[in-house]
Order: sequence, then C-alpha cells, then structure tokens
Amino acid sequence: MPYEIKGLNEECGVFGVFGAAKASQLTYFGLHSLQHRGQEGAGIVSSDGEKLHRFRNRGLLAEVFANENNLDALVGDVAIGHVRYGTSGNNILENVQPFLFHFGDGDIALAHNGNLTNSATLKKQLEEGGAIFQSTSDTEILVHLIRQKMGMDFVSALKQSLNEVHGGFAFLLLRNNRLYAALDPNGFRPLSIGRLENGAYVVASETCALDTIGAQFVRDVQPGELITIDKAGLHIDSYTPKTQLTICSMEYIYFSRPDSIIHGVTVHNARKKMGRLLARQAPVDVDMVVGVPNSSLSAASGYAEESGHPYEMGLIKNQYVARTFIQPTKQLRERGVKMKLSAVRGVVEGKKVAVVDDSIVRGTTSRQIVRLLREAGAKEVHMLIASPPLRFPCFYGIDISTRSELIAANHTIPEICELIGADSLSFLSLPNLIKAIDLPEGRNLPNGGLCVAYFDGKYPTPLYDYREGYLKSLKKQQEREVV
Amino acid sequence: MPYEIKGLNEECGVFGVFGAAKASQLTYFGLHSLQHRGQEGAGIVSSDGEKLHRFRNRGLLAEVFANENNLDALVGDVAIGHVRYGTSGNNILENVQPFLFHFGDGDIALAHNGNLTNSATLKKQLEEGGAIFQSTSDTEILVHLIRQKMGMDFVSALKQSLNEVHGGFAFLLLRNNRLYAALDPNGFRPLSIGRLENGAYVVASETCALDTIGAQFVRDVQPGELITIDKAGLHIDSYTPKTQLTICSMEYIYFSRPDSIIHGVTVHNARKKMGRLLARQAPVDVDMVVGVPNSSLSAASGYAEESGHPYEMGLIKNQYVARTFIQPTKQLRERGVKMKLSAVRGVVEGKKVAVVDDSIVRGTTSRQIVRLLREAGAKEVHMLIASPPLRFPCFYGIDISTRSELIAANHTIPEICELIGADSLSFLSLPNLIKAIDLPEGRNLPNGGLCVAYFDGKYPTPLYDYREGYLKSLKKQQEREVV
Amino acid sequence: MPYEIKGLNEECGVFGVFGAAKASQLTYFGLHSLQHRGQEGAGIVSSDGEKLHRFRNRGLLAEVFANENNLDALVGDVAIGHVRYGTSGNNILENVQPFLFHFGDGDIALAHNGNLTNSATLKKQLEEGGAIFQSTSDTEILVHLIRQKMGMDFVSALKQSLNEVHGGFAFLLLRNNRLYAALDPNGFRPLSIGRLENGAYVVASETCALDTIGAQFVRDVQPGELITIDKAGLHIDSYTPKTQLTICSMEYIYFSRPDSIIHGVTVHNARKKMGRLLARQAPVDVDMVVGVPNSSLSAASGYAEESGHPYEMGLIKNQYVARTFIQPTKQLRERGVKMKLSAVRGVVEGKKVAVVDDSIVRGTTSRQIVRLLREAGAKEVHMLIASPPLRFPCFYGIDISTRSELIAANHTIPEICELIGADSLSFLSLPNLIKAIDLPEGRNLPNGGLCVAYFDGKYPTPLYDYREGYLKSLKKQQEREVV
Amino acid sequence: MPYEIKGLNEECGVFGVFGAAKASQLTYFGLHSLQHRGQEGAGIVSSDGEKLHRFRNRGLLAEVFANENNLDALVGDVAIGHVRYGTSGNNILENVQPFLFHFGDGDIALAHNGNLTNSATLKKQLEEGGAIFQSTSDTEILVHLIRQKMGMDFVSALKQSLNEVHGGFAFLLLRNNRLYAALDPNGFRPLSIGRLENGAYVVASETCALDTIGAQFVRDVQPGELITIDKAGLHIDSYTPKTQLTICSMEYIYFSRPDSIIHGVTVHNARKKMGRLLARQAPVDVDMVVGVPNSSLSAASGYAEESGHPYEMGLIKNQYVARTFIQPTKQLRERGVKMKLSAVRGVVEGKKVAVVDDSIVRGTTSRQIVRLLREAGAKEVHMLIASPPLRFPCFYGIDISTRSELIAANHTIPEICELIGADSLSFLSLPNLIKAIDLPEGRNLPNGGLCVAYFDGKYPTPLYDYREGYLKSLKKQQEREVV
Repeated sequence: MPYEIKGLNEECGVFGVFGAAKASQLTYFGLHSLQHRGQEGAGIVSSDGEKLHRFRNRGLLAEVFANENNLDALVGDVAIGHVRYGTSGNNILENVQPFLFHFGDGDIALAHNGNLTNSATLKKQLEEGGAIFQSTSDTEILVHLIRQKMGMDFVSALKQSLNEVHGGFAFLLLRNNRLYAALDPNGFRPLSIGRLENGAYVVASETCALDTIGAQFVRDVQPGELITIDKAGLHIDSYTPKTQLTICSMEYIYFSRPDSIIHGVTVHNARKKMGRLLARQAPVDVDMVVGVPNSSLSAASGYAEESGHPYEMGLIKNQYVARTFIQPTKQLRERGVKMKLSAVRGVVEGKKVAVVDDSIVRGTTSRQIVRLLREAGAKEVHMLIASPPLRFPCFYGIDISTRSELIAANHTIPEICELIGADSLSFLSLPNLIKAIDLPEGRNLPNGGLCVAYFDGKYPTPLYDYREGYLKSLKKQQEREVV
Repeated sequence: MPYEIKGLNEECGVFGVFGAAKASQLTYFGLHSLQHRGQEGAGIVSSDGEKLHRFRNRGLLAEVFANENNLDALVGDVAIGHVRYGTSGNNILENVQPFLFHFGDGDIALAHNGNLTNSATLKKQLEEGGAIFQSTSDTEILVHLIRQKMGMDFVSALKQSLNEVHGGFAFLLLRNNRLYAALDPNGFRPLSIGRLENGAYVVASETCALDTIGAQFVRDVQPGELITIDKAGLHIDSYTPKTQLTICSMEYIYFSRPDSIIHGVTVHNARKKMGRLLARQAPVDVDMVVGVPNSSLSAASGYAEESGHPYEMGLIKNQYVARTFIQPTKQLRERGVKMKLSAVRGVVEGKKVAVVDDSIVRGTTSRQIVRLLREAGAKEVHMLIASPPLRFPCFYGIDISTRSELIAANHTIPEICELIGADSLSFLSLPNLIKAIDLPEGRNLPNGGLCVAYFDGKYPTPLYDYREGYLKSLKKQQEREVV
Repeated sequence: MPYEIKGLNEECGVFGVFGAAKASQLTYFGLHSLQHRGQEGAGIVSSDGEKLHRFRNRGLLAEVFANENNLDALVGDVAIGHVRYGTSGNNILENVQPFLFHFGDGDIALAHNGNLTNSATLKKQLEEGGAIFQSTSDTEILVHLIRQKMGMDFVSALKQSLNEVHGGFAFLLLRNNRLYAALDPNGFRPLSIGRLENGAYVVASETCALDTIGAQFVRDVQPGELITIDKAGLHIDSYTPKTQLTICSMEYIYFSRPDSIIHGVTVHNARKKMGRLLARQAPVDVDMVVGVPNSSLSAASGYAEESGHPYEMGLIKNQYVARTFIQPTKQLRERGVKMKLSAVRGVVEGKKVAVVDDSIVRGTTSRQIVRLLREAGAKEVHMLIASPPLRFPCFYGIDISTRSELIAANHTIPEICELIGADSLSFLSLPNLIKAIDLPEGRNLPNGGLCVAYFDGKYPTPLYDYREGYLKSLKKQQEREVV
Repeated sequence: MPYEIKGLNEECGVFGVFGAAKASQLTYFGLHSLQHRGQEGAGIVSSDGEKLHRFRNRGLLAEVFANENNLDALVGDVAIGHVRYGTSGNNILENVQPFLFHFGDGDIALAHNGNLTNSATLKKQLEEGGAIFQSTSDTEILVHLIRQKMGMDFVSALKQSLNEVHGGFAFLLLRNNRLYAALDPNGFRPLSIGRLENGAYVVASETCALDTIGAQFVRDVQPGELITIDKAGLHIDSYTPKTQLTICSMEYIYFSRPDSIIHGVTVHNARKKMGRLLARQAPVDVDMVVGVPNSSLSAASGYAEESGHPYEMGLIKNQYVARTFIQPTKQLRERGVKMKLSAVRGVVEGKKVAVVDDSIVRGTTSRQIVRLLREAGAKEVHMLIASPPLRFPCFYGIDISTRSELIAANHTIPEICELIGADSLSFLSLPNLIKAIDLPEGRNLPNGGLCVAYFDGKYPTPLYDYREGYLKSLKKQQEREVV
C-alpha cells in the first residue's frame, strides 16, 4: 500500500452494483476501500434505467468527489466505478475510467483492471478499418471490437470480442439494464461477487470493498467467465473453455489489502505465513523484529512469532504524507531531513534489528531504511524479504519497472546486500512463497495456481506484442552482463 | 493520532530554528512531523535579520503551503512555526498562529501550545486600559502584557509578563535577532532543544521533529525556564523559582508520536509497558490480542507479549481517509457502510479477541469497534484500555470534552461495558500508569511528576477563571446523579 | 457582445497560425480578441512538427489558461485554437474544441465554427458502420468521414468529406505539417487570412484577431474554398464549384467586433449606417439619442448624426460583471436592485429619449431598459431597433432561441411596443438593412449576398435533418395563433 | 475607470445600510456599483443586533463572494462594506476592510476612504502608550484613539478622535445598534445619503450605489459632519465648526462613475462640458473626434458636439480583460501584439483624428494610443486632454505616482507632445476645469470649492507628516532640472 515509496504499482480497482438505491454512493464507498489499487484518477458511471451519467477526474477519490453534488448527480440504482493507477506518460483525463460511449442504440460504460498483450495489433487493425480512439488506453479496444460486430446480438458480440483480446483483464461493462463482469482465461486479476441484504449484487476487485458496504461474499469470478447481472438476478456463463488459474502472486505479497480474501485465502494470513516460513528458512541472531509500515507488518509479525524474537515498532510512518507535499531539497536531504519513515531511537538504539519487508524493487527504499536504523543507533540491521527476488517484468497488469531498473535482475544477493548496506539479506524461496499462499483451488496446478513469472521468467501465456521487445531487452542485458 | 475518530485533541505544536540557511523549510519539515498535534491551521514566520515574514492559513500544513512559493517567500535563517488544533467556534484565520505584530521599534512573532487559566481576567484588564485584540485566542495576551511595560527592557518585560499568565504554556517568541522559548512553572507541555551539525539551535514540541531534520537532542526545556537563542548561542534562564514538574500524562498515553522521547522516556516504550502492566492487572482468556490502529499498537504488542497470546492484525485502518471525505448517510450506515476501520474476517472469525485501545472518551468508537469485530465473526470481544477512566476536564491545553460527555464521568465500568457491547472491559490502574511511564526526574515527585487530573480531579494549580464554572458543573452533575 | 443579457449567441470563434515562434501564445492573443464569439470553453492545439499538444477547459480563455504553464507546454510554431459558445445541455468538457485525435499514422486536430444540417443522418450512418463518437458535438463527424476513406490520400478524403456535410461551417484542421481551412459553399461564417511580418500565415474568424497580433490582412476565405498552409506557403483550392455567398447578416448587426472588416465592410461603419437609415426611415421627436452599451453605440451615433439630435450617454454598463456574480433575489429585484445597466439620471431626467438597440430577441432586456429610463425620470422612451424583427430560427451556426421564444414571431410590432412599455417602437426595414451593409461582392446577388432568413424565413439551402421539426413548429405556432 | 491602464487610482469605496432585511446583500450590490473605486480587496460586516459578522478577502467583490454562503452568513439588517484599492506593498489580507474589533463591551467595525496626513505621528504616540496595530493601514488609528478615551461616552470619544486625525477621510463605523458616517473638514471625498422605500437609510461613496439598490437620494454629507443612523432615524451633527469645501476635482475628471451626482453635479455632464470648453479653448482641424474608452467618452462627445466634428468609435476596448490575463512577452509586443485597446482601421484610415483623453499620468498610455492609431492608418493624431497637466502628488486619498513619475512635472507640453508622438497636444486650462464642473455650493469659494492641488501645488491644508518629504522631493527635482 505505501505506493509512494515503491516502484511497484497495481493498475486499478473496479467496483459495480446493480439494484440498490443510491448506487453511486455505494460505489463511492466501495472504491474508497480499493483506493490502494490506484490513486491517479477515479470515476463513477450510474444508470437511471434510461441514461448513463458520469463523473471522473484525476486525483484521489475524495478529491474527485470533493464537491458532493458531483456524486449526487449520478442518480439511479446501478453504477460502476474505477480507481486508476497511471504511469506519468498517460496520466491524462481522457484515460480516467470508466469510459462512457453514447450510441444511438444506447450507452455503454466500461471499467478495466489489467493489461492486454495484443492491444497494439488490435488497435492498428481497428484504425485501418476507420476506428477512432479517444484515449491512449487499451481498454477502449473492447468497445470497438464489439461495435465492429453490428448486427450480432450484444452478448454474442461481447463473448467473441473477449476471445479476441489477450492478457490479464477484469472488465466491468454497464448498459442501461445490465451489468457485465468478465475475467481473462488465466484469472490473473482478482474479482469477487457479493450480495447486499436487499438482494442487490455487487462486483469488486477485492472482498474488502464488499465488507465496507456490508455485502456478503458470494463467490470469486472464475477464469474465462462472463457474469451478467440484471433484474432477473445473477447469470454465470463462460466465453471460453480454455482456462487455467494463474492468479498474480503479487496480489498476496503486496497489493491487496490484508483483510481481503482472494480465492479463499485471507491476505494477512498468507503474509504472516510468508514471514513464518522465512523465519524457518533464514533465521538471524537479533534482538528484535521490525516491520516496514504498513504493508510488511503482517509478514514481520509472522517472522517474530516463529523466531521467538520480540516484535517491535522500530519504524513509524508519518500518516500525513500528502501528495502536494513539498520535497526536501538536495541541500536539506544532505542535512538529514527525513520524510515518511522514522526510526524509533528509543527502541532500536544499541540493538541488533531484523527488518522484514515484502519486496525489493530498485533497492532505494531498503537503503534508506538501513541508513535510518543505523543513524538511530541500531548495532546490526538484517534485511529479510518475504518474497523471492523480482527479476522479470509483468505483462498482465502490474507496473513493475523495466528489467534494467530491477536491482535483482542485475545483481546477486550478496551484491544487493552490500548496495543497501545491510549486515545480511535473505529472500523467501519460491517454493516457500507458494506454500505460504497455499491456494485451495491450486493444489494440483503448476505453481499452486499462481503466476510467479516476475520471479522465474516463465510466463503462463504467449506475450504477443510484447514478445519481441522483451527478448531484445533480455539479450541486451545479457550482453551487458558479459561485458 | 487518529484525531478524526476521537473527542480528545491536543492543542498545537510549535517549532523554531535559529541560524540555519532556509530556516522556513526546516521549520516546514519540523512541523510536518508535529502535524498530529494540530490539523486545523498552520503558519510559519521567518526573519531575515531586518524584517519578519509570515504565511499562514487554515488546513493541513501541506495544504497551507501547497504553493511552494509561499514557503520560498519566507526568507532568512531564523523561523518559528505552529500547527493548530482549533475547536469549531474559533476556527478562523485570525486565530491561526504564529501571531505577528509590527511595531515601530521592531516586529514580534509568537507561537503557543497550551491554555491560560486567567486569560479572561487579563483580557478584561487590558481592554479597560485601551488594548485592542485582533484574535479570540488568549495567546495574544502575552504581547499586550509586554507592550504595557514600555520603557522596561524587553527581557525584563517578558519575564514579568510570564509571571502574570497562569496555566499550561510553551511559548516561542521571535524578534529579529533573537528566539525565546518559555515553559510554564509546571512544565505541563513538552518542549525540547536540539542542535544541527552546523551549530544552529532548534526548539520543538517533540523530539520526533528534531530527528526529522537531523538535529541532535540537547535537553528538555524545564518548568519555569526562559531560553534565549541568538548569535552568541543558547542562554538558559528562569523567570520564576517556584516550579514543580507535572507533565501531562496524556502526552505519553495518546498524543505524542511513539518515536518521541519526553523527559527521557520513549513514548512507544511507555505505551508498551502500559500494555504489559495491563496484561498482569487484567488477564483475559482469548485467542489473540488486537490493537486499534494506529495509536494503540504499542500497548497492544505489550499486552500480547506479556500475556503470551498471539498479536494479530484484526483491525485495519484505511490510510486514505481525507478530510473532504463524503460521509455515509444514515440510510447507508444502516446498510452497514463502514469507514476508516475494518475488521479482518479471516483473522477474527470464530475467535475470542482482546482489543487494546489507549483510552475511552465518549465511548462511540469503542462501540463501533466491538460491532465491527462481532460482524466479522468474533466469538468474544474483550476491551482493554491502557489508561485509567477519563473523568475530569483538562485546563492546561488538552481539549477533553466537557464532563457531561465523558462516558466514565457518568457511568460505572460495568455500565460502560454494557453500553459498548463488550464481553468484558478493564482499565489500567492509576498506579500502574505512573509505573509504566516511570519518569526518571519524577521519582520523588507526587504522581511521579505527572499531571493525572483527568483521572482523579486533583489539579496541580489553582483554576483561576475556570474555577467557578468547573465547580458548578460538578454540582450539576452530582444533582443529576442523585436524581 | 453583451452576451450575458441576450438570448442570441454566436457559436464559436477559430484561429490558426502556421510558422511563427510561440504559435500557441499568438493563438492565445488571437483568441482573446475573439472571446466575444464564445465564453463557455476554450482550447489550443499546437504542433511541434512531430506531435500535437492540447490544453482545453470550460470557461473564459483567461480562466482556462490562468496557469501560464498550460500555455507554455503547447510548444511548436504551428497552432489552432477555439473559443466556444455552448448551450446548457451540451456544456461538457468533451465538447470543448479543438478536438484532437491520435492515429497510428499521425494526429489530427479540428476546430469548427458553424452548424451542420445533416449531422444526425451522418452520425447514424457512421455508427451503423461501427464508428464511436466521443462528444455530442457534430464537429467530430468530419474526422469520421475522412477516416472512412482510408486508402485515399488525405486531401482527396477531406474534399470528398466536405461535400458530404451540409450547413454553415468554417473548419480549421491541423496535422503535423499542414494547416487546412475550409468554408461552406454559402460562406455563412466569416473567415479571413492574414500574414505576419516574418511571412507566417494566420487564419481567424474575424480580422480583429489579425490586428491584435500585428498581422496584415491578405484575403477572406471564399465559399467552397479549401485553403492549405504549409512550409511552401498558402495554397488556395476549392472542393466544390457550386457556391453562392449568403453570409450571415447577424455578424454585421450584432456578433462581430466593430473593428472587424468582413468582405470589405467595417462592422462599425455598417452599424452606423443602419442607424442613419433608421433615422431617415423612423424619425422621432426627442431630446436625445441613447445607445445600449456596448453593441449598439455605433448604430446610435449614426442615428444621432443623421437626425441631428444630440448623442448622450444615458445608459452605462457596469464593466465588472463577472460570471460568478451573485444575482439579486426576487425580494431584492422588487426593491429595485439593478445590475449590469444603469440609467444616468442627470442626463435623462425630464427628457424625451430615443434608445437605439441592435435587436430584440425575447423582449426582456428592452422592457428593463424602458423601465430603467422611466425610473430615472425620462419623460418619453422611444425604442429604435437597428435591424428587422427576428422571427425565424437560424440553422447555420447562431443560437437563436426557438420560434416560440422570439417575441416578434408571436406578436405584432404594436403588441411588442406595449409589452416592453415604450412610447413607440420601430425596426429597420429589410431593404434598408441590406443597403446599410452594402456588401461589394454581393451587389448582384439576392439580398446583397446576405443570409436574412431569421427575418423572412427564406433559407438559402435545404434544411435536411431540421426540415421536419421546423415545419412542425411552424404549424403548431399557426394553430396557436388561430386559436 | 480603466484602472488597468493607468497610474492613477482612487483609494476605496464605502457603503452602509441600516434597517433593511438582507442588509449584507444590499451592501453587496451597492459595492458592486462602486467596484471601479477599488479592485484589490472587498469585505462586508453585518450586525444582527447582538454581534458583528465579517467576510473579506483580496480580489474583486465577485471573487471574494464567489461562494454565496459567505454572503448568506452575514445575517442582520445592518451592514457596512468596502472595496479597496491597495498599492503593491501593502496588499495583504490584514489591510482589507472593514476592520472588525471585538471588545468585551461590544464590537466595532470600520471602513474608510481617504488618507490621513498625520498618521505616522499618531501611530508612534499610540504605540508608545502600548497600543498594538494589526494592519499597516492608517485607518485603524481612529479606533485606537477612541479606545484611549475609555470612560468617555462613545460619541464624545469619536468626535474628539475625529479632531485628532487630519487629511482626507470618509469613515463609516458600525456598532451593534448604530451606524456612523464622518467626513473630513474639507470634504475631500464624496459621501452621500439615500433612503429606501421602507425608510431604511443608506450611505455610499457615490450616488450610483443608491440608484443600483433603488434608494432615493437624500443629501450629501457635508465637511465636518458626523451622521448617526439608528432605529430613531437620521441624526446630523458636526464635530468641528472649522470647515471649508475643497472636494477632489479628480472625482469629476476621472474617478467617479458618469451616472453619479456629486454635490449636485452629474459627473457625465461635467465631463461633457470639459470637452466642450476644451473644443473652444483648443480647436483642431480634424476629420473626426475619438474618445479613449471608457472614461473619456463623455468628454469626447462634448468636444465633438461643440466643434461640429463627427464623433467616431475609432478606439475600442476589449471587454474581456481579466486580471489573470497572460501578458504578451517582449518578443510578442515587438511583433505587435496588442491588448485591451484596438484602433478601428475602417474608421481612422487616412483620416485626421482628434483623440480626447481625461488625463495624462506617465504618458505611456498616450504614446500607445498614438501608435495604435498611426498603425491603423490615421494621417494625423491630435491629443486633447480634458484636464490640466498633473504636476503634484495628492495626499488626501488618491494614489498619484510620485512627482518623478508624472510626465508633466518633468516636461513642458511641447516636450510631452514629442514624447508621445502626437501631431499636437492641448490640455484644458484650470479656469475652464473649474467652470466645467461649476459646483453650485462652490461658487463663492476659492477654486469653486474644488481641490486642484495636483495641478497648482497649492494644498488646502497643512501636510503634517508628509511636509518634509514633499519639500525634499521638490528640491531634488529642482536640482535635477538645474543640472
């Protein structure tokens, strides 16, 4: 969750509700609990049965809807919403979702979490046929594919289109009287269904959004499914028989909220077990265990309990870090001005400290943490990472920096340890990661039903438009390494 | 720190620096780490040696200085700053500090943390002498008292004025070439001095602000002291010999940041010990210990370690709660829409849970927490409060709701337990509180050098202007209780 | 120009420049002098030769670019811009121009002044072919028509598309290395070309924009022309041979700035002559002539000079009317609170006053003016309108309220006179209007080369999609009149 | 009124109303018509009979009250308001009026138009007595003087204080149940009383504000008067018998709105007569007369009528000049980018033009106007100024640039003519100015009851604190001239 100090970010959260009064307000509260999945933009589209209404803008949800009138104007008892993570290049209003399209035969709204691997090819084909795109996002492609099939009934056109796009995706589509949810054939992204007391159905990226609005969990959307919700209730269908679950392991390690339950596994519990297994795999002789707030506290408490070392609050995070925050100048940084994280001198001074963090991307944050603790008087600092080294990019919806930036793609573990200045450094092994998550549905599947490609480079699907560039980057890196 | 869900608030944090380039930026970063002490307004005054410059506004520090130009305009190597907690009635721009006064013979700026007990009397006397006040704050009185002594040298006038005001106060005064810091004779409020590498001195409400800007701790300001900092360095003086330390115990229990060290005691350690002593004093038969994030995590981990029960993350706090946040309507609340805090079903379901919180004011939050946990499936919920029951108001700078709102002033512990719906409820005893904090300087003083008047109603000073109203309210309450 | 007190509004102004450093800034200043043509939104697209850059928003130009960085980011020496008038229903960001389309084979930007009469039909056809529109504006259609002709070279596709759209239009299109300007076959809207000292070409809705940036007038764009500007200079071509000039007479009467020269006629001079001819046609026995500021001052001075009556400043306009202006409540209006216009008591008291205004739409403003003057003591108020009665809607780019709102479509002149409370009321005759404008190019054309359909209901082109609705409304009105 | 292109500015407008429902809204509309007197800040204080309420901010009135809630919060049927002109140095929120003072014995609000000549001396004396000022404005002094007289009844203290301040002033004071208005003994500034239909009294800097809210003119406040308005009605009193009317002639020449009537003279009529007398005094051989919009249109029409030359609209002003307007860079200005004013080529091309302006301060604007007209093709440009040369500063409330900036203080008329590039230049003579205004009350007074010190340097009162600096500046200038 501490997105601001990481190079690792989830792209987006989606939420939808059908058949509840003040649907846009429920969507607002649902999205609020998904805010950790994207902070660059937010939007909601509601339907009053005749027309779709939208409000969206860049910024946090609470900023976008700072003027409550903008929420109140989204009337109707059906709505979908989206919180967006955007990379700097494409952080423009046109890309903020849900997308909304007005047609003579009715409106369509669309919200998406994921990344398509054949979008460049599809976009080129569509443009050559006269299509005009309004955003630089690949999400829009789905609607163009559907509209190319004019004459076909909507659901058939949608199913056929879902077979034409590849990659990781969780789509919500809204028409005036129906809400559709579709998941890719690998189920890379989480998507759950809940039900409110009045019988209204809810769809959300994580179950924490169901809890927030008081909805009961019904089931996870399964790979390759197309869910339709309308006045007659919930309809489960699938658009392809070729499916195999490989859900993103980073959802358990880092992205999802600790209280979310994905495919039967509570995220906090998985993290705690990662900590426990790491304690067995990499014991250290220390006085205390410290977690990096907030995302690594679960793993750290697991490590502490299993190792028997006391669990201490040796690092605290300033809860008032706003995005408009003025940054210390170089001059001030050299003078030691610290932001966001502080070490608790009264706790760590003179002590041997084990720091548990969930992952290392570029290594910058780890280096800062080690320095903070040493300046506060820690005698030794041992860094313990509750996941394997990140060495390969993700093409299914996570923005992991290019390989050249991943410290573990370019350095051995002892080199990294030296670069971050720690006394020792250990990573959880891949088998232990799979064991910690222990997905019930994945027990007979490769890698326990998880996608672990960022760790081992073995992608569960073809890479389509990304394949060539990826192979080139691998080659270039190997050349560098040889030199 | 979770000010938004409490009825208990500290009034203000102060920070000052003398003799460091970009003093206003250092002050900004210092205040940033004191933001938990006040979120209603912020301001900084700098001195370039000839003139004082000010910028202030209502809102969080990062909002006030959202436009960096406003900070850059505060030139000079001396500055003081203030973050303000304000009650609704007086939350106007005129009351945002530091105050700045332009005189023909030089400017004066003033920042204050505390509350004066004889301000009404002084203000009346001054107005009858022709004085004109520009704010509704009592802070301004000090400058009027000084200016009434025209002809006297500044320091003598200041010392005499400090003897005329009563109550709890930590003042910072800035003139063009001097920075003054003064603490009340009881040292109700914390105030610490640090030094930067280049020799510049820093004064701050808490030591966490010293750490943030890389300053070394020098000493705590002592009761009755007047500190002067100028080009010649640090001068320690006192304006009265009649002093006795009774520092606010709530600073340790709730207000201060866990990494701050006050009179030699690290706040986190004090809280952890409160948890430990509570575990000995009030053991419960549970499956796990859960802390209320974020302020009660220290005490909860102490309770867990001492009791041997596992420490779990059964409650999590949404880190994106903004102040513009749209509130759920009654209709939505009834439907179960929850904000800010969530219970982790995967952790607490079917379990007996001990919840550790730092204090209970009106009881509203405790009731919500119990309900959240029960809805998430907790079998039993035991509430453990790491401080004694709050039964009396504070007149020295903490905004504790009037007695009529304090649940413990009106109900017995079994009654409170029923009102909040818990299976059991225990409070830390007063002797254990004093023992947990264990102030080195206070070992031979009554109550260990602490003010504990909110718990026992024994105020360490006369109440002056408040006395009559306080006695009336006591009487009214007793009558109610008799009826 | 006093758009805020009228029911009559021009839709939009356009501006483009090719080959001048800081093209976006020149465009800003050009648009600034066209602000009277639209106040609801503004935008600029620049080209740096490789990429198009855009900034747009709702509001006045100075509001849209209040942060100068947004203008500075529009780099390059080519740019087009747009100021927009929008009716309430479609006043959304998506409709603010220029439109910008990103294609694999290059970007296109588009700005438009006018109204298409067959847009509904075209849009339906395009959607049935799979096209997706992003705005509710008909401007977008042109780009879809062009993209349907993939394979054809761009200019041929553009020319063919220009033959498919009907109505009144002045289009600017920008590609990376070329700027295109196209005018409809009737030349309903004004569009002029200028040249800067360095040889760069400029296109603008009115010549006042050329003057503002120091460009020399080159020529008016003629009906049916397609102008191309690139590094090789200016190329004049036409996309159809079937043209006949019928430029909008309201441009001379009301919309354009008095200093603009359209088809060789200075707007101020035409208005002054309207006043002169009105003085001959409708002499009144008065003490003075007063113009309604600001748009009617030219006509009023013409009336005064021709009639020999003194020209007086009997009405003044508050120049600080902002759009956020708080409106007087009904209670205050009844108490006589007046905004915007004031009568000068010291001038009109006890006098017989001739008021010259340019037109009457709903009659509301005229009624207010008569009342203002009477309250200030005027003995008689004679209303003189320097154009014929407005009785029919416009379909070529002017937002004249529907027929049912036009007072002259529903009442005789004596009835209107009574409704507005004047002592007498006269309108300029249609032949005198044509004589006053006296278009050199139009001397052998019907109506002197002008469109006067709002006065006589004789539209110079078929009405396409509007025909049926228009005929219905005529019939409904006739029935009402019969009843 | 075109304050943005002048170096000459009026300091402030005041408005007050007693006994009308929604008094703050009436005040808003009254101030709106006084906006030309000050654009840097605005504020309103209302009284509900028990408490005074204030809202103020920097900016135009419509900006300050952009959020209507801020106006609605000013409840009660009594209010005063202020629009402020501020020089750059003191344009801070603390200086925006009305000032509001809270006292134990009741609140006082204060609004002021004018300038005190002994404020430095008084401020020094008051500070030495312990007074603390909250603004850098001299307005505050009056309240301190009153409060120094504690024990005396309020009206006696006020009267005595009014005798202690010197210079030009129009004060409005508000207490809970009384509104006071006071004018200096020379009546330098205008101040008028009106009455609403319901009997409520209104006080305003100009009568145009009375007209705007539908109030009937009652009388002008006379020099040395103290007016009291309360539930018993209007009470006229005077605080000094030593009075002599010398009202500021610049109010007639430039500042006041043309529809205002000051001491019986309509401003537009005075200006028109200035134009007429200038035509007789300085006839020129031209084809047309052109006024500089908007302030010089009255004088220009007078000149045209008297001379028999046609009055033409040869210059127009862009009505959309906003304060956030992006300024042309030097590069763009050299390319000829023009703002604010445009010459109408179709009117002036090939013609001999007489331009009438109200005054010349630094000469910059005149030079621009001459250039604009020549670039638009004017054959000759004759500049005619409808007032005498401005050669001396004002100390009574007008911000005329220091002598060193006044072009007429440093150059002869032929030199100025050459500097601005005109073919000829004439100024109205001082006797003709006095004759044009022709103040009924001033017929037997020196200079017809006008202050004309900016023209002849003969100040009607001692200069007090300004005397020494003024004499020095005269001497320095004489030395420069000798050299």
